[in-house]
Amino acid sequence: MTPAVVSSLGELLDHVRRQSPLVQCITNYVAMNYAANTLLAAGASPAMVHAAEEAGEFAGVASAVTINIGTLSSPWLDGMRAAAKVANENGKPWVLDPVAHFATAFRRHAVQELLAFKPTVIRGNASEIMALAGDASTGRGVDSGDSVERAETSALVLARRTSSVVAVTGAVDFVTDGHRSARIAGGSEWMPKVTAMGCALTGLVGAFVAVAPATPWEATISALACFSVAGTQAARESSGPGSFAWRFIDTLAALNGDGLQAQAQVTPG
Amino acid sequence: MTPAVVSSLGELLDHVRRQSPLVQCITNYVAMNYAANTLLAAGASPAMVHAAEEAGEFAGVASAVTINIGTLSSPWLDGMRAAAKVANENGKPWVLDPVAHFATAFRRHAVQELLAFKPTVIRGNASEIMALAGDASTGRGVDSGDSVERAETSALVLARRTSSVVAVTGAVDFVTDGHRSARIAGGSEWMPKVTAMGCALTGLVGAFVAVAPATPWEATISALACFSVAGTQAARESSGPGSFAWRFIDTLAALNGDGLQAQAQVTPG
Amino acid sequence: MTPAVVSSLGELLDHVRRQSPLVQCITNYVAMNYAANTLLAAGASPAMVHAAEEAGEFAGVASAVTINIGTLSSPWLDGMRAAAKVANENGKPWVLDPVAHFATAFRRHAVQELLAFKPTVIRGNASEIMALAGDASTGRGVDSGDSVERAETSALVLARRTSSVVAVTGAVDFVTDGHRSARIAGGSEWMPKVTAMGCALTGLVGAFVAVAPATPWEATISALACFSVAGTQAARESSGPGSFAWRFIDTLAALNGDGLQAQAQVTPG
Repeated sequence: MTPAVVSSLGELLDHVRRQSPLVQCITNYVAMNYAANTLLAAGASPAMVHAAEEAGEFAGVASAVTINIGTLSSPWLDGMRAAAKVANENGKPWVLDPVAHFATAFRRHAVQELLAFKPTVIRGNASEIMALAGDASTGRGVDSGDSVERAETSALVLARRTSSVVAVTGAVDFVTDGHRSARIAGGSEWMPKVTAMGCALTGLVGAFVAVAPATPWEATISALACFSVAGTQAARESSGPGSFAWRFIDTLAALNGDGLQAQAQVTPG
Repeated sequence: MTPAVVSSLGELLDHVRRQSPLVQCITNYVAMNYAANTLLAAGASPAMVHAAEEAGEFAGVASAVTINIGTLSSPWLDGMRAAAKVANENGKPWVLDPVAHFATAFRRHAVQELLAFKPTVIRGNASEIMALAGDASTGRGVDSGDSVERAETSALVLARRTSSVVAVTGAVDFVTDGHRSARIAGGSEWMPKVTAMGCALTGLVGAFVAVAPATPWEATISALACFSVAGTQAARESSGPGSFAWRFIDTLAALNGDGLQAQAQVTPG
Repeated sequence: MTPAVVSSLGELLDHVRRQSPLVQCITNYVAMNYAANTLLAAGASPAMVHAAEEAGEFAGVASAVTINIGTLSSPWLDGMRAAAKVANENGKPWVLDPVAHFATAFRRHAVQELLAFKPTVIRGNASEIMALAGDASTGRGVDSGDSVERAETSALVLARRTSSVVAVTGAVDFVTDGHRSARIAGGSEWMPKVTAMGCALTGLVGAFVAVAPATPWEATISALACFSVAGTQAARESSGPGSFAWRFIDTLAALNGDGLQAQAQVTPG
């Protein structure tokens, strides 16, 4: 990491391990297990609590909330609203992952409702961020049809409109708060071949924004760098997406602040 | 593969990788992650979209739909109906996996309702296919109590009655469209020890029936052969069901059309 | 295993493999896949059947029921009640796993309702068992904030009050029926870093209490010893929580009664 976009990248990972923040993850059925293991590997304490009967109450206890609409349904949307509302009212950081929000009317409306609770960070693939900014995208399902580069202007527009940090993840990630921007390189070509990697990353962003004294901007960049460094390392020994998936967890669990700081590839945008 | 039951087995896998069909998988909670990774390893684009609020709309966009009743509930059945209806009305291929449909009245009724939407392919274990044809089976839960051989007549009867391709999977798979039949050997003894392998195979059949110019008969045989070849290869290096599960994904991801064509063990029935 | 707390530890595992009991697991979304693979590795036949429409009917067929409230919601609680009621009325063993029951009012009420159906075994971490006995605990989310040692008195009180076998699992497990107690050592430091290990253990206890002629006391100790022995072995070759997760399944699948008997570390409490 040559230019010091964030000087404390590595320290933030150490903070996550030391503080072990309780992160409420409302995520999809596909991702739950892998996302929980990702957070555990980083030292956080994930809790998958989604039901409307308790999601708001639990958000009052959690250090951060993450909401991913991957396998959305009406009862889950009720829980998402409850948790996002409490997070917003209590000034707790929360992360929105608008999976394939452009695919159906139900998703489009859900995301608009959730945006009203002012997410601290929005993380998506290029197609999702472009569509969220109101731009034309070529996404169909959950996989991106567009490159990160094509989504950069959309991300800037979206960040200014929402006052959220916006992260577009892909081959090289792009992060912006509407004023500054940064790119995070690394990762592996296996990542889009392992389901729920993006959803797990959303959870990890939740762990980083949960710890003091990081700002959302720093926390998002650190979480993405952490994910990319672990991905690059894990890919070296993997023979396919199946082995990559578990090696990524081993690698992330073994990564410390110094290793992250030394290997992160972050450049100002 | 000595007798040319399907001459284009390998080509169909290449078509899946090239066309990357969007496959809507409504499957059970146990299987979602593994099924999505299986489809990604084969080059398809899986989307787990189940809610009644959007399942029908999404089926209009997807190239194929797969429905598995493993962890059935009323709201999910609503989504299954919606997706199957749209698939049927639009002439899109869809695959039914009637998990343990004989176990409770709720499941029996659900499967009868779904059959009315004329699945392109029905895939199940021997006990499931026998019970669906109205024959006595010894199944209790989700594991088969009967051999594939015992289910062959039931499969023929069921295929004629429904005009579906019927696939009975087990040690040696049996596929019939009511007129022709074929057997697919291979796989591994670890497969029944890894949960959701059958459900993942249902998803893979969905990927193959989604691509032109395969007929459902050819697509089903190719998908089953692909699964069996990957299973045989993966088992060679596995020390148990845990390692088999991820090696299977690595192996499937590395398989190409030529490899499939060379190693498939398909014989006319 | 020097003192003969249970002389037939190993035999019970052989019984599970021979009888292959049908175990109905109502567990959380995070755990379903791993719990099913754990039961398959031990030779049992897991069935994830949760919906109120069929959970009670299926409990009438299953050999044992396990209920874990990890990702609780109202419809699932309906199914849990139905299954627990049938199990209780038919004298079938059932296991309760009160995940983070202290975290919200919804969970506290749910657990009280389920306790009325008299679980055969209650398995939890130290914070959960302490809170269930009415004692102060430091738990926040799903991870324990207390040591097993601190929960021993709570476990004894809870076991006497409920007439259940109570298992507190952690670094060294503690099991009591209110009169006798035992400790089970072994396992691995990776276990709390792999999500859903505890939930999978609850499922395994269900498999052991399902087979004749074990008493719930013997079955619980054997299941915990089986889990610990597999964990100790698997950890020897693991480089992190990702590899531990699948090696644990391989190891458990390869374990037989003699191996369990020889390696179990069970001492009277």
